[in-house]
Amino acid sequence: MNKNKPKYKQIIDAAVVVIAENGYHSSQVSKIAKKAGVADGTIYLYFKNKEDILVSLFQDKMGQFIEKIEHETTSGQSAEEKLLTLVETHFEQLAADHHLAIVTQLELRQSNKELRYKINNVLKKYLAVIDNIVDEGIQEKLFRSNLNRRLVRQLIFGMMDEAVTNWVMKEQKYNLEEQAQDVHSLIVYGLAEP
Amino acid sequence: MNKNKPKYKQIIDAAVVVIAENGYHSSQVSKIAKKAGVADGTIYLYFKNKEDILVSLFQDKMGQFIEKIEHETTSGQSAEEKLLTLVETHFEQLAADHHLAIVTQLELRQSNKELRYKINNVLKKYLAVIDNIVDEGIQEKLFRSNLNRRLVRQLIFGMMDEAVTNWVMKEQKYNLEEQAQDVHSLIVYGLAEP
Ligand SMILES: CCCCCCCCCCCCCCCCCC(=O)SCCNC(=O)CCNC(=O)[C@H](O)C(C)(C)COP(=O)(O)OP(=O)(O)OC[C@H]1O[C@@H](n2cnc3c(N)ncnc32)[C@H](O)[C@@H]1OP(=O)(O)O
Ligand SMILES: CCCCCCCCCCCCCCCCCC(=O)SCCNC(=O)CCNC(=O)[C@H](O)C(C)(C)COP(=O)(O)OP(=O)(O)OC[C@H]1O[C@@H](n2cnc3c(N)ncnc32)[C@H](O)[C@@H]1OP(=O)(O)O
Repeated sequence: MNKNKPKYKQIIDAAVVVIAENGYHSSQVSKIAKKAGVADGTIYLYFKNKEDILVSLFQDKMGQFIEKIEHETTSGQSAEEKLLTLVETHFEQLAADHHLAIVTQLELRQSNKELRYKINNVLKKYLAVIDNIVDEGIQEKLFRSNLNRRLVRQLIFGMMDEAVTNWVMKEQKYNLEEQAQDVHSLIVYGLAEP
Repeated sequence: MNKNKPKYKQIIDAAVVVIAENGYHSSQVSKIAKKAGVADGTIYLYFKNKEDILVSLFQDKMGQFIEKIEHETTSGQSAEEKLLTLVETHFEQLAADHHLAIVTQLELRQSNKELRYKINNVLKKYLAVIDNIVDEGIQEKLFRSNLNRRLVRQLIFGMMDEAVTNWVMKEQKYNLEEQAQDVHSLIVYGLAEP
């Protein structure tokens, strides 16, 4: 499947809106096709099934997100600066697309094991970006060296993620991006060499 | 409904196991009845429907959890000590009951709005316990006074919650309780007066 064909993107963008508005389980492939303005059969040229649409949209958006972070963090920056860019970009990307925020915070949390493993596999790439920043912070002696790195990346992701979920549940009515600085401070002080 | 009747507890405990093993959507009321060793009709003497069973079990276990925390934190303790008790108790309770951990981390995350509001409403009581500890920490000048308290409680809960979810997804194969101390340090340093 050619992921650069315009229809691929068109279907993915339609899927984000349909899934955000109807919930994953009530988002029939035909609804997504209609929203995308393509025939039902066209969807199956690009995707195996609805599950594949969900995983692919996450993959596609995650890819763009990681490119953006890599573009905005330069090698001259300290780990502290990179971490701020990370938190800001995470919040910005989701604040910029309300439908995407509903999909990431509510609809991508599937309890079906097989689907969940596929989704979490996409998340790995993001966690690796966090790992790199934490490692740099340790090398720069900004962060303690005796940290449990697995746990630390979970705690960093968990803070950002819970902040976003609360903002989604509150109908996105306050400014999420303004909170990046506070989240960043908690992490940097929290991991600092005492 | 008399919540202290033995059958109420019996049904709730059966529901935790059935929902953990089959997922919420595949947990028919009749399956729960069978596991509990009661007639299908008996369930409806205590619960309106399956949704009510899910919300009630969360309410019941959350009530026990909060009582335990209140019992274990005494007024003489500092906010720092209380926070450690909180994190430890959170991890202990879930490590002690593998089925309950699967239910809290995977099955209680429902994207259906109405059900989610009911579940989140139960969570409020726990967040209020976190608020009190944060406030005490500010009064004791252990924590900064310019914190966004709403955000802080979300970050504290988010760290614990993500640590637990990862442990559940890794089939609970490492020791979660040992990590309470590291989570506690990150929070205390993170919120400390610089
Ligand atoms: C649409 C996209 C929009 C993009 C743009 C917007 C901006 C980005 C927004 C991102 C939003 C994200 C939304 C994602 C939502 C879906 C996913 C969730 O539900 S997320 C919310 C819920 N969260 C989740 O569902 C995440 C659950 N996590 C996972 O499923 C996995 O961690 C993984 C698949 C992510 C990575 O797996 P893996 O690569 O295997 O790496 P591991 O580290 O796990 O394990 C490596 C080894 O370390 C061991 N170990 C681990 N931890 C600890 C510890 N604390 N202590 C000691 N040991 C530990 C472990 O046992 C293993 O040992 P062994 O086996 O080698 O002996
Ligand atoms: C089986 C049990 C086992 C128990 C024993 C085991 C140990 C415990 C384990 C616990 C496990 C927990 C599992 C729970 C799983 C289910 C729930 C989840 O999915 S959790 C994972 C996902 N997380 C969730 O789903 C949690 C989502 N959160 C919520 O749904 C709600 O926060 C709430 C219902 C929890 C509280 O609601 P409410 O009482 O209304 O209080 P709010 O503070 O929200 O709002 C008050 C005001 O503050 C405004 N504001 C808020 N934040 C900010 C901010 N950062 N900046 C600025 N402003 C902010 C807001 O706009 C509002 O303003 P206004 O409207 O008054 O003008």
